Amino acid sequence: MIHTRLTERLGLEMPIMLAPMALAGGGELAAACATAGAFGLVGGGYGDLDWTWREWDIAAQRLANTAAAQHIGCGFITWKLDQDASALDWVLDQPMLPKAVFLSFGDPRPYAERIRAAGARLICQVQFMAQVPQAVEAGAEIIVAQGGAAGGHGAAAASARSTMVFVPEAADWLAANAPDVLLLGAGGIADGRGLSALLMLGADGALLGSRLWATREGLAPLAAKELAARTDGDGTARSPIFDILRRKDWPAEYDFRALRNALHREWEGREAELRADPGAARAAFEAAAAAGDFTGANVTVGEATSLIHDVPGAGEVLRRIADEAEFRLGGARTLLKP
Amino acid sequence: MIHTRLTERLGLEMPIMLAPMALAGGGELAAACATAGAFGLVGGGYGDLDWTWREWDIAAQRLANTAAAQHIGCGFITWKLDQDASALDWVLDQPMLPKAVFLSFGDPRPYAERIRAAGARLICQVQFMAQVPQAVEAGAEIIVAQGGAAGGHGAAAASARSTMVFVPEAADWLAANAPDVLLLGAGGIADGRGLSALLMLGADGALLGSRLWATREGLAPLAAKELAARTDGDGTARSPIFDILRRKDWPAEYDFRALRNALHREWEGREAELRADPGAARAAFEAAAAAGDFTGANVTVGEATSLIHDVPGAGEVLRRIADEAEFRLGGARTLLKP
Repeated sequence: MIHTRLTERLGLEMPIMLAPMALAGGGELAAACATAGAFGLVGGGYGDLDWTWREWDIAAQRLANTAAAQHIGCGFITWKLDQDASALDWVLDQPMLPKAVFLSFGDPRPYAERIRAAGARLICQVQFMAQVPQAVEAGAEIIVAQGGAAGGHGAAAASARSTMVFVPEAADWLAANAPDVLLLGAGGIADGRGLSALLMLGADGALLGSRLWATREGLAPLAAKELAARTDGDGTARSPIFDILRRKDWPAEYDFRALRNALHREWEGREAELRADPGAARAAFEAAAAAGDFTGANVTVGEATSLIHDVPGAGEVLRRIADEAEFRLGGARTLLKP
Repeated sequence: MIHTRLTERLGLEMPIMLAPMALAGGGELAAACATAGAFGLVGGGYGDLDWTWREWDIAAQRLANTAAAQHIGCGFITWKLDQDASALDWVLDQPMLPKAVFLSFGDPRPYAERIRAAGARLICQVQFMAQVPQAVEAGAEIIVAQGGAAGGHGAAAASARSTMVFVPEAADWLAANAPDVLLLGAGGIADGRGLSALLMLGADGALLGSRLWATREGLAPLAAKELAARTDGDGTARSPIFDILRRKDWPAEYDFRALRNALHREWEGREAELRADPGAARAAFEAAAAAGDFTGANVTVGEATSLIHDVPGAGEVLRRIADEAEFRLGGARTLLKP
């Protein structure tokens, strides 16, 4: 069993946390991860109360009277909470308390006190080094350094950080300034090689999105998952295109990684034009989304799609990753010779 | 000592290769790396014969009658060779033969036969999975998977691959299709953490640019290196801006990472405007370059600038990295418990 500060602090059987994925990561997926010995996060995302209510209740049913109920939390998009925090307030008042609240994309400080007061840990995801001190000031117990390989939202392409560099840089900063704060790496981790690499870089564990998205428990359509499982790593891109098409008003420092499908390719390099006159493209997008046509609708998966070749259950995925990482870490010494 | 297929095949004391850096990585740096037990590559780059001649002669003088003369090669930008390959032809005809020729950014196949015939190994750097089969077809003995964190030229930001994902994906492809071809990772590796992580991902070794650029032997101005050593990882960006300013006619699929200085920030998001009317900005750039003013002139360093805090000799840098990686690999088992 892999043993890190994360497994010790949270009582986990593997140093893995499910990324909270808005609309795609619901109660079934989070409960399956918690049951398998990882930490599960429901993707509260945009803060829709009905969605969070339904999915949190599913997780609560699955985990009722189990030890895994200690390993469940909920994530939110911070700048959406600034508009409406009712889903956060609701979940913090539930009989099954989220053991952690995960905030990303905004200033976490206004929410830190009510999260702590409810008895939940604060986890802050950051995209830039400049956000690390603010997360520590907010009282984050765990910081997640997200690299640009991640699917969905993240730092805009030109200035996105790389998991390979961001993790050791953040580890150095935390060691010097906040040594009790744990560090996870995110973006591009989908197998035991990535997990063992992250641990070599100085992380306490990994946050996994895409690989757990492509499981039976993920809420994305099966056809989207199967398409991702057939796509190589050249087949995704970061851009604001799908946010424009979906009328999502994201701050300019963030954009979105998804499969680079036909509709995306049509608008690459023409984002300003699309923004100025989105009508026809939005109609095409909405028709495709309604029809489940992924030449137009977004398939929200990261570059790690290249390492995903099947759509099993989340528990099986997690066991594979933990076993492979254990094997690689156990055998690392064989790379040395006297 | 770390032992991989790379150290075995090339007879090295550490699984590290110097990235061939046009204009910045000359004979002194390549010879220092070879002498320290890594593989040194002179940055023939744009294929300027006078520059290659001078720097290759420096390397030959430093390595005369030493075993390290077996660990030296030369790199070129392939699409520039398509215009003028005289520097390649010259170096392949020298008394100190390059033991490897490193090609990047273009189709290597037209040059493979003359490189092999001269007795040099072919190393191909790739930015996309789609380029891997072509490199294997050309007869590359070593493939370098370059992620977007790298300094200087690489895949354009929106579609750049991440070292963390590209390496295991390329490793899987080579294992299935060309198992004798070695794989190096590049982009974001600057210390023993990164090297040990790459080995966990399945690479046979690392290609290092920025960390070896910021050494006494690198040809960049000391003030540029010292500025990089003070800059964190948020302080670089990928864009075509410096290529436009420097009148470099790069194919659209590539752009350039450097410190995000004042002149760069001025043009971010306005690349089309700059391309249409570059006159005044070019004059500002050229004045800054002439004056050694790095608020305008490019400092060509990757995201790994965040892990660089000093400007020592290349031999010292390499020993530190090899020692740290050996320590981490040797201790990896301590992450396991029964």
